[in-house]
Amino acid sequence: MKKGTLLFGQSGGPSAVINASAYGVIKEALKHQNEIEDVLVMRHGIEGALNEDFIKVSEYIDQLELLPKTPGSAFGSVRHKLSDYNVDDREFVQLLDIFKKYNVRYFLYNGGNDSMDTCLKISEYVSLMGYEMSVLGVPKTIDNDLPHTDHTPGFGSAAKFIINTVMQLQLDSVVYPKGKVTIVEIMGRHAGWLAASSHVASLSGMGPDLVYLPENTFDQEEFFKRVAAIYKEKHQCFICVSEGIKDNEGNFIGSLNQFKDAFGHLQLGGVANYLGDILENKLGLSYRAIELSTIQRSAAYIRSKTDVKEAIKVGKKTVEAALKGETGKMVVMNRANTTEYKIEYSLHDLKDIANMEKVIPDSMIKNDTEMTQEFFDYMMPLIEGESKQEYRNGMQLFFKL
Amino acid sequence: MKKGTLLFGQSGGPSAVINASAYGVIKEALKHQNEIEDVLVMRHGIEGALNEDFIKVSEYIDQLELLPKTPGSAFGSVRHKLSDYNVDDREFVQLLDIFKKYNVRYFLYNGGNDSMDTCLKISEYVSLMGYEMSVLGVPKTIDNDLPHTDHTPGFGSAAKFIINTVMQLQLDSVVYPKGKVTIVEIMGRHAGWLAASSHVASLSGMGPDLVYLPENTFDQEEFFKRVAAIYKEKHQCFICVSEGIKDNEGNFIGSLNQFKDAFGHLQLGGVANYLGDILENKLGLSYRAIELSTIQRSAAYIRSKTDVKEAIKVGKKTVEAALKGETGKMVVMNRANTTEYKIEYSLHDLKDIANMEKVIPDSMIKNDTEMTQEFFDYMMPLIEGESKQEYRNGMQLFFKL
Repeated sequence: MKKGTLLFGQSGGPSAVINASAYGVIKEALKHQNEIEDVLVMRHGIEGALNEDFIKVSEYIDQLELLPKTPGSAFGSVRHKLSDYNVDDREFVQLLDIFKKYNVRYFLYNGGNDSMDTCLKISEYVSLMGYEMSVLGVPKTIDNDLPHTDHTPGFGSAAKFIINTVMQLQLDSVVYPKGKVTIVEIMGRHAGWLAASSHVASLSGMGPDLVYLPENTFDQEEFFKRVAAIYKEKHQCFICVSEGIKDNEGNFIGSLNQFKDAFGHLQLGGVANYLGDILENKLGLSYRAIELSTIQRSAAYIRSKTDVKEAIKVGKKTVEAALKGETGKMVVMNRANTTEYKIEYSLHDLKDIANMEKVIPDSMIKNDTEMTQEFFDYMMPLIEGESKQEYRNGMQLFFKL
Repeated sequence: MKKGTLLFGQSGGPSAVINASAYGVIKEALKHQNEIEDVLVMRHGIEGALNEDFIKVSEYIDQLELLPKTPGSAFGSVRHKLSDYNVDDREFVQLLDIFKKYNVRYFLYNGGNDSMDTCLKISEYVSLMGYEMSVLGVPKTIDNDLPHTDHTPGFGSAAKFIINTVMQLQLDSVVYPKGKVTIVEIMGRHAGWLAASSHVASLSGMGPDLVYLPENTFDQEEFFKRVAAIYKEKHQCFICVSEGIKDNEGNFIGSLNQFKDAFGHLQLGGVANYLGDILENKLGLSYRAIELSTIQRSAAYIRSKTDVKEAIKVGKKTVEAALKGETGKMVVMNRANTTEYKIEYSLHDLKDIANMEKVIPDSMIKNDTEMTQEFFDYMMPLIEGESKQEYRNGMQLFFKL
């Protein structure tokens, strides 16, 4: 490959280990100064590239060891969809000029489905224009919905937070003689991996009674029946629900029945509140709705060590692939067929990944509301190991621009 | 004191260290078998006493070391207010019979303001009836609103969770070029100690822009003005609010403007959702409302080591006081007037504590929406030190009945 600048960016929703991948990229890039003359990071992803808003990594070397311990996107993120360059190539022309100006020969982009679309388009465009640049995707999403990879960095830590939080909420909710219905709302608009992970808590006897996933059609009458039966037996019921559950017409549950606020405007109350509300009205049960919200993707204080290590590794592996001249691909993780958990890293074409979604296979779901042993076997290694944070005066130490 | 049974119970809302106090009581009680013949725990607090539903501690010795690491009330809790025994003494007559039947000579009750009311009434009644029994309160509440004690076990760990979560949410929320208003709703119906603690995060540069407390009257116009000014400057705004903020007539904010649900019923959306909604309508800002909910009182994975130690200590100290024949009192924590943080334990009459609330003094609040150095100095030792949890397969190990 030509000698030049490595340009890196973060995109889409943050995770608790997104900066661990940034760390992996940066550490590896700094080792190859013969090929990589400079390491720049776009501020707010592709928007930073368009604005020539670049962060020089060399100015943050003293803080670098805190980077993998820091949640959020340390260099800023963005949700900016590039147009089809066949229809409107203005941003592409602009980007190419900037790549030339900074002699960018390595373009690494960290994100999920949408970000891989950005990555794919840039790789195709620069290749069409005959500009030699290695364009590679670094996988990231707590949703675990990228195809062609066993799982994605960020998922294991979010799942570990969810599992342990559900256990704690269970212990908190069962203390009273007559309990409530607890409904925990978990992220995942199209794939239910995170909501499903809550069921792992059942292995320690503190799991939810019911799990609702976007992979299944939500049947309200069946829901009433199941909750009523559980409540009758246990005097409480614990439900985990994905924010993305839908009815048989594909409408998000709750979206047609949103609350009106004081001003008469529609209020997105969240599916947990909606389900609690219909249970209260139909069955007379009191409920507590708990949204795990963005806490679940930023909980650095409880992360999976496996996830942190793998997040760093995908960053490193992407730089190695870039140096070999690979382009238009993303690093994927394959689970080796061994009794011990082992991940092998390879590359997969971005065009099979961009804008695609991997949902939970049927074989991992039981009775619509439980997970199978196959799912538990899949999950267990991903949450293994505790990652130690550094604290000063009771507060975590984080990387800051 | 007479030789007899020690009866212990947990009451009110759980905390992340409530079982650490139970551990302190049990471990100390087991050391004094000359005076304490048996250690029983009421299931669901005073309701367990009335139902003679007792747990024999001796049956759980093998799990005892997990007890201080477990959130929730391991032996069950209750919200049961005993009547005035001058008006209706039926429950008291029943309790006294049961105390006699089991030869209960030590009655220790762990809880907050309301639980201390139960404790006080029992101590007065048995004393009136000439039954020799030591009745003592073990302090507990995440709300930190018990008077005559520097702070309460449970508060430090909840505060530490809140501070670190706010830091993480800040890092998560600032990633986009144009951000939202983030509103974090924190427990504390009458006293704002927990909401105030969020401001400690500002010491690491990741604190909220505004903190709203029940100690101050909430002024909606002033709120709009401040948020608008901050948003104009920073393109985002981060607000922490106590669930208990009130207007100048003493009404809880949001309570008069509750959402109507699909059935036309009032929906308690929470104050964060309410504030976000009025900001959206008045200033056109998009927002994210995050309720820390019961996660904040059960987050065992991030606790203050200081808090855990002190929670155990108050349990132990209460048993010591009981053995000295003390009754009608609660163990309190006094901060010694030394440069190093040091707590001295003493006793205080329950009648000065039961049903009373300690709010934040004016000297700790600045400009209605910030905390002073005096508050930070008060807080810092309480969140100090990390308490290690035990994990197996990525899941915390907890005590279970």
